[in-house]
Amino acid sequence: MKALKENSIKKGDALSTARIAAILSAKKTSYLIPLCHQIPLSNVQVKFFFEENAVLIFSRVKTNWLTGVEMEALMSSTIAALVIYDMCKALGHDMKICDTKLIGKFGGKNDHGIVEFEKLHYKNLL
Amino acid sequence: MKALKENSIKKGDALSTARIAAILSAKKTSYLIPLCHQIPLSNVQVKFFFEENAVLIFSRVKTNWLTGVEMEALMSSTIAALVIYDMCKALGHDMKICDTKLIGKFGGKNDHGIVEFEKLHYKNLL
Amino acid sequence: MKALKENSIKKGDALSTARIAAILSAKKTSYLIPLCHQIPLSNVQVKFFFEENAVLIFSRVKTNWLTGVEMEALMSSTIAALVIYDMCKALGHDMKICDTKLIGKFGGKNDHGIVEFEKLHYKNLL
Amino acid sequence: MKALKENSIKKGDALSTARIAAILSAKKTSYLIPLCHQIPLSNVQVKFFFEENAVLIFSRVKTNWLTGVEMEALMSSTIAALVIYDMCKALGHDMKICDTKLIGKFGGKNDHGIVEFEKLHYKNLL
Amino acid sequence: MKALKENSIKKGDALSTARIAAILSAKKTSYLIPLCHQIPLSNVQVKFFFEENAVLIFSRVKTNWLTGVEMEALMSSTIAALVIYDMCKALGHDMKICDTKLIGKFGGKNDHGIVEFEKLHYKNLL
Amino acid sequence: MKALKENSIKKGDALSTARIAAILSAKKTSYLIPLCHQIPLSNVQVKFFFEENAVLIFSRVKTNWLTGVEMEALMSSTIAALVIYDMCKALGHDMKICDTKLIGKFGGKNDHGIVEFEKLHYKNLL
Repeated sequence: MKALKENSIKKGDALSTARIAAILSAKKTSYLIPLCHQIPLSNVQVKFFFEENAVLIFSRVKTNWLTGVEMEALMSSTIAALVIYDMCKALGHDMKICDTKLIGKFGGKNDHGIVEFEKLHYKNLL
Repeated sequence: MKALKENSIKKGDALSTARIAAILSAKKTSYLIPLCHQIPLSNVQVKFFFEENAVLIFSRVKTNWLTGVEMEALMSSTIAALVIYDMCKALGHDMKICDTKLIGKFGGKNDHGIVEFEKLHYKNLL
Repeated sequence: MKALKENSIKKGDALSTARIAAILSAKKTSYLIPLCHQIPLSNVQVKFFFEENAVLIFSRVKTNWLTGVEMEALMSSTIAALVIYDMCKALGHDMKICDTKLIGKFGGKNDHGIVEFEKLHYKNLL
Repeated sequence: MKALKENSIKKGDALSTARIAAILSAKKTSYLIPLCHQIPLSNVQVKFFFEENAVLIFSRVKTNWLTGVEMEALMSSTIAALVIYDMCKALGHDMKICDTKLIGKFGGKNDHGIVEFEKLHYKNLL
Repeated sequence: MKALKENSIKKGDALSTARIAAILSAKKTSYLIPLCHQIPLSNVQVKFFFEENAVLIFSRVKTNWLTGVEMEALMSSTIAALVIYDMCKALGHDMKICDTKLIGKFGGKNDHGIVEFEKLHYKNLL
Repeated sequence: MKALKENSIKKGDALSTARIAAILSAKKTSYLIPLCHQIPLSNVQVKFFFEENAVLIFSRVKTNWLTGVEMEALMSSTIAALVIYDMCKALGHDMKICDTKLIGKFGGKNDHGIVEFEKLHYKNLL
């Protein structure tokens, strides 16, 4: 447990890597999810919070385009989780990614407004 | 609940789409996860099972290459889940992706053997 | 001959795979055809019709953007044909792709209108 | 007719562009055709021949890998055709791509040998 | 020295290849530079000038979009330089790429105007 | 001058982002440089050193494959430079990328050995 937090502080690069991979993947969503539209994103934010045995990942994606960007947000937080998994797997595979879901959404198709999205993510390391 | 199963049978295309996107994403893993090696895969299998309120996704990835392919397996099942989410989200966002984890692994770095991987995935629709 | 039709019904997955690959490739046209512009597509439709010794492929691509999308339509139907070729080639290479052409086009550069495109495609076996 | 040949000589860049796009697309085949394996190619050759009302495109792809590369050859000649179409379409859409097929194949799965492939391609401009 | 010029005339294909790779890479900038926005480009021009021991590369990129495209211009001229390096490296590695910089910029975020960009590039071969 | 160093320490993320983009681009070299082979890389190292008015970037790329990886090394250090440029350009465009060159190379085609490569890179900020 304690090892995870210390480890994550030491692995500062893991979070940087996860954030950048998340941003890049958000921009590639329409090439990975066949029926997603190509949407120019105006902003992708990825934040990490540490809990006892878990890392929480929040993604918030914005666009001025006319469709929602929930898939882009889910994509970015999912890829962030996979990157962390990849960078910690040398320490053991006793991890899982769970509870990926939508937290909020504003704007959308009708109002061309800013679409916000967040995602909760736990990664346990016993 | 019942709607999901019927719906999923009707949405046969959703599973096909998810499977193909999963296979394509497995091959692109090294471009999405920065520190993954480029690994030529010999086989990617994606299977879906229906439970009461959930779809289970199993991915099995094989290679003759000298490193493990757990990230490729996790990538493919994760992308499969996102595709299903994308194709069902018109029915409501009351879904979540949970418990993505490694089930088994054979071979690996030392023996250049076949690496197998599976992943469990629940998607609830109330 | 008859085998093709039955085979294609059995190979339902081949058509699904072809359709999805066609949609994905349409979105990637500007990365494959060097002088094509990056155009956000609003819709890609791919339809298949069976004739005696052939499969016909029709693609219809729409955009609200200011340039035509004929290359996107040709790309998607061509890739659909290659996918079918790929999935049938175990049965023999006695196939050919022929007569890829533009059927209709509406709107275009001047009126920012919806651009529609279709493409005829024969694939003979025997 | 005559205009085509002169035009094609003047459009030297069209053939260069087609050749380069063809080579790049051959390397991307496994990302466009979902069930193709990732195969490191050792050589891609694309040649153009002028007939009265047509351009013939021949592609020859080689690998030392253990599977055939016919899809890579078909992909490269198809993309070459689409590039030529794209660069000539300002002169009118009275063109078609026809008769894409396999000419020869050597080596393959069993002998890990060099696989050669060629493809015939006509593009008519009345 | 003299060899370079003659060689470059003979290597007409090298410049064509460099130009096309430059155009393609400009369109992919947002996938290579993580914090760049996805910007639909309306025009990419790449020009080459020969000096005694050097090739100069000028790139000019235009967009109607609301952000600058300096990174797209730098990307395209850089990739052009790398392609020339790649195609000349059989003659020896006594080359270097130097002085990549911005020459001019018009329009930008505030006026949605056309953004122009150029880049100077020397490649010495002793 | 001093501002640069402090700025770079504060912009720790800039170097992380540059490193990750460099690694990803090295793996994509064959898709950006048309005549490069697809080479599975076994290792990409990117290091940064600060001088008075400059950042030096060193890339070292390794493979067990049968061709050299100098283009992969040049690609990765070039992309690293472009990322730093991108992240500092808000402070002014008074920067240039200069003297990109090969420092050393070991192994290569004949011995299938490890290929090492380095590249020197200056970025001046007055």
